[in-house]
Amino acid sequence: MTGLRQSWVESANDPETDFPLNNLPYGVFSTDGKGPRCGVAIGDMILDVAGLEAEGILSAGDPPVFSEPSWNAFMELGPEGWAGFRGALTALLAEGSSLRKRVEPFLVPMEDARMHMPMAVAEYTDFYAGKNHAMNIGIILRGPENALPPNWLHIPIGYNGRASSVVVSGTDVRRPWGQLKGPDMEAPVFAPCKRFDLELEMGAIVGVPSNGPVTVQEADDMIFGYVLLNDWSARDIQGWEYQPLGPFQAKATATSISPWIVTKAALEPFRASTPEREKELLPHLVEPGPMIYDIDLMVTLAPEGKTPTVIAETNYNRMYYSAAQQLAHHTTSGCPMRVGDLLGSGTISGPVKSERGSLMELSWAGKEPLELDSGETRSFLEDGDTLTLLGAAKGNGYRIGFGACSGTVLPALDDPYAR
Amino acid sequence: MTGLRQSWVESANDPETDFPLNNLPYGVFSTDGKGPRCGVAIGDMILDVAGLEAEGILSAGDPPVFSEPSWNAFMELGPEGWAGFRGALTALLAEGSSLRKRVEPFLVPMEDARMHMPMAVAEYTDFYAGKNHAMNIGIILRGPENALPPNWLHIPIGYNGRASSVVVSGTDVRRPWGQLKGPDMEAPVFAPCKRFDLELEMGAIVGVPSNGPVTVQEADDMIFGYVLLNDWSARDIQGWEYQPLGPFQAKATATSISPWIVTKAALEPFRASTPEREKELLPHLVEPGPMIYDIDLMVTLAPEGKTPTVIAETNYNRMYYSAAQQLAHHTTSGCPMRVGDLLGSGTISGPVKSERGSLMELSWAGKEPLELDSGETRSFLEDGDTLTLLGAAKGNGYRIGFGACSGTVLPALDDPYAR
Repeated sequence: MTGLRQSWVESANDPETDFPLNNLPYGVFSTDGKGPRCGVAIGDMILDVAGLEAEGILSAGDPPVFSEPSWNAFMELGPEGWAGFRGALTALLAEGSSLRKRVEPFLVPMEDARMHMPMAVAEYTDFYAGKNHAMNIGIILRGPENALPPNWLHIPIGYNGRASSVVVSGTDVRRPWGQLKGPDMEAPVFAPCKRFDLELEMGAIVGVPSNGPVTVQEADDMIFGYVLLNDWSARDIQGWEYQPLGPFQAKATATSISPWIVTKAALEPFRASTPEREKELLPHLVEPGPMIYDIDLMVTLAPEGKTPTVIAETNYNRMYYSAAQQLAHHTTSGCPMRVGDLLGSGTISGPVKSERGSLMELSWAGKEPLELDSGETRSFLEDGDTLTLLGAAKGNGYRIGFGACSGTVLPALDDPYAR
Repeated sequence: MTGLRQSWVESANDPETDFPLNNLPYGVFSTDGKGPRCGVAIGDMILDVAGLEAEGILSAGDPPVFSEPSWNAFMELGPEGWAGFRGALTALLAEGSSLRKRVEPFLVPMEDARMHMPMAVAEYTDFYAGKNHAMNIGIILRGPENALPPNWLHIPIGYNGRASSVVVSGTDVRRPWGQLKGPDMEAPVFAPCKRFDLELEMGAIVGVPSNGPVTVQEADDMIFGYVLLNDWSARDIQGWEYQPLGPFQAKATATSISPWIVTKAALEPFRASTPEREKELLPHLVEPGPMIYDIDLMVTLAPEGKTPTVIAETNYNRMYYSAAQQLAHHTTSGCPMRVGDLLGSGTISGPVKSERGSLMELSWAGKEPLELDSGETRSFLEDGDTLTLLGAAKGNGYRIGFGACSGTVLPALDDPYAR
C-alpha cells in the first residue's frame, strides 16, 4: 500500500483529511454568484475543473465534458479517459507541479461551496446484500426459521428504486404520508409514517453501458466509483404494500447520497474479499478476485439542537455480495445498463448490535429503544433528527474519505393535498 | 360523441383507419436517407412535423420542440401547449385547409417509414391493477383462498420497472437466461427461460412533473397520452426471485410499446368508469369522474411462418384502477414524477377465458395448452413466435387506433457470456 502523496495544496497533506491527493473525488458545487459546476475535492479546497477546462489548462476530452454541471459526460469517456484525467489531475496538484500558479486561481474553499448532485442518476436499483441485515429483518418479520429467503444465498436479490427521488447530502427529507395498516387495525388508513428509518448503504455508480449479460469481472470494470447512500425507509408503509411486488412508496420519498464520487481508482488499495460462501454460487456470479472494499462506516443521529450520537459503526466489507456481483446479476436477463445507473448495496450491518445499519435493527422494531447521548431514546426517526453517514478507507498515513451524507427529517405536511 | 372529422388526406377518412383526423397520435419515424424525427399519423401517411417546424409552417413553441427525435420537449410545454398544437394541427389537416399545398410535401407514406421510440422514458413503473388477472395469478400461485393480496382492494400496487429495457414495437426480443429453480429442483440453475410470456397492458405517459402528493384529478391532468404495452415476462425466473423484493430480472429483458402516443385529448370521448368498488377506497384514491377508457384490445400470436391466431380479446375498461389513480398513489410518499415517466396498467384480463391477457392465464400455467389455428399448441412462447397487441377506441363511424405493438421472440443465446 502506497503512503500519502504530497500536494502543494497544504491541507491535502493532513493525515486526517478525507481528501488527500490519493483521493481526488468528483462532485458538483456552486458558490455565491456562480452556479453549479464540476469540481474535485483536494484537502479543504475544491478545484474548479470546469473553469480549468474552459481556460484550456486541463482537458479530459474533446469535445469538452464539463460544460454541464454533471459528471455523466466525463463518465462516457470510459476507463481510459478516466485514467488519463486522473493522471493529469494528480500531476497538476502534486508537490512541485510547474502549473501551480495557473491552477491556484481555480481553488475554491470548500466552506464557501454548496454541493449539488454529482451526476444525473439514470436509474436506481437497491439490493439486499448484507447477510446480517437480511437475517435481522427476517427474524423480526418472519421468525428465525424463515429469516433468510430461499434465494438469498444464490443471487444478490434487489429491486428497482426511483431515480427521481435521489438527492444530495444536505437536502432535508420530509416525513412521508402513506397508506398503512398495523396488524391490529381493521382497515388501512392514510397517515404520516410513524416508523421512518435510515438504511446505511454504499452506492456504486455505473460508468460504462452494457447491452446483454456481463461477467462479474466485466461488471467490476464498468463501475466508475462509489458514494455513501442512505435509503430512507418508511417501515410501516412498506409492511402494508410490499407483498407481493416489493417495496414501492416506502422507499420513494428520498435516497440521499454523499456529494463526492470516490473513484474506483482511489479505492484500489482497499480491495477486500467478501466473506466465505455458505453455498456455492453458480459460476456466472463467482468473483474472480477481491471486489468489495475495506471502508469504515459510521452513522450519527443528532436530535434537533443536540450533539450527534454515534449509533452504528461497521465496514463495507461485511457485505455478502459485491457491487460487481450485483451488477452482473442485474444484466443476466439482457437488461441494458446505462451510464449514471446507481446501485445501492443494501443495508450494511455487522454481526454485533453496534454494527447495525438501521433503526429497525438497532431498536429491534421498537422493542429496544436506542439511548442517545442526550438522554433521549429512539425507536425510529423523530422530526428534526439529523442523520449523518460517514465513511473512509484508511491507508498508511492517509484516508480516502467520502464526505458526509446528511439529511434532516422535516415534519410531515399537515395536509398533503394543500397547494 | 362526435363523428369522423374530414381531412384532405383521403386515407384518413376511411372509417376503418386507425388514424383519422380525430386521432393525430405522436411518433418518431425515419425514412431511407433521413434520420429519426417527430411525426404525426394521419390515415396511411405520416406528417413530418419536425420538417414543418424547421420551415416555419407550424410551431408548437419557442424555442423549437422538434429539433430532437423525441416528444419529451413538446410534453414539457404542458396542457395548454398540447391543446394549442393539437388545434393548429387539426386546422392544418382538415378538409379545406388553406395551407394544404404547403403541407403536402411533408407527408410521408407510412409504409416507407421505420418507427422509433416516441420519447425518452424517464422511469417505468408497472402496476397490477387488473382484478381478473390478479385473481387468476393468485389462484395459480397461492390457491383461491389467498388469491388476492390483502392490500389489493385498497391501493393500486405496483413496482418500479426498468426504463432502459423499454423498446418500440418491431424490436425483436431475445429469450433471456436467468437463475431459476423449479419446486422439484434441489438447487437453482442458470438456464434459458422456459416460461416466457406476454402481458397485455396499456401504458400511460406522464407529461407534467410533480414534486409531492397529487390528487387523482391532478394526476389525470398530468397524463399526456397512452400506448399499448407488452411487458414480456419470464415466469420461471420470476418465481425464484420475487420473494420478498418483487419482480426484477424476470421483467427486465424488454417491455414493448406501440409507436404512436395516442393523446388523452383524442381519447376524451371514450372515458369510462372503473368497476364498482368492492371495498371503499380511502378518499385520496377516489376518482372524481370517469378516468378509464373504453378501448377494445386484442392479442395475436403467429408461430414463425404461420398466420396469426387471436388469443385474447378484452377491453381496457376491465381495470379496477385507472392510470390516474395509479399515478396519484405513486406520489403519496412525495416521490417526484417527471415528464416521460411511463406507467404500465398491469395485465388486462376480462372475466372469461377468451379475455385473458397472458399465456400464464390462458394456458393456466401450462396445464391447459392453448390451441392455435395452425394446429400447434402453446403453454408459453416459443422461439420465432410473433406477438402483436392491437387496440382501438371505437366511435361513431371512426376509430382511434394505436397501431400494432409487435415483437418476435429470438432464441436464447448459446452462451450469454460470449462476446
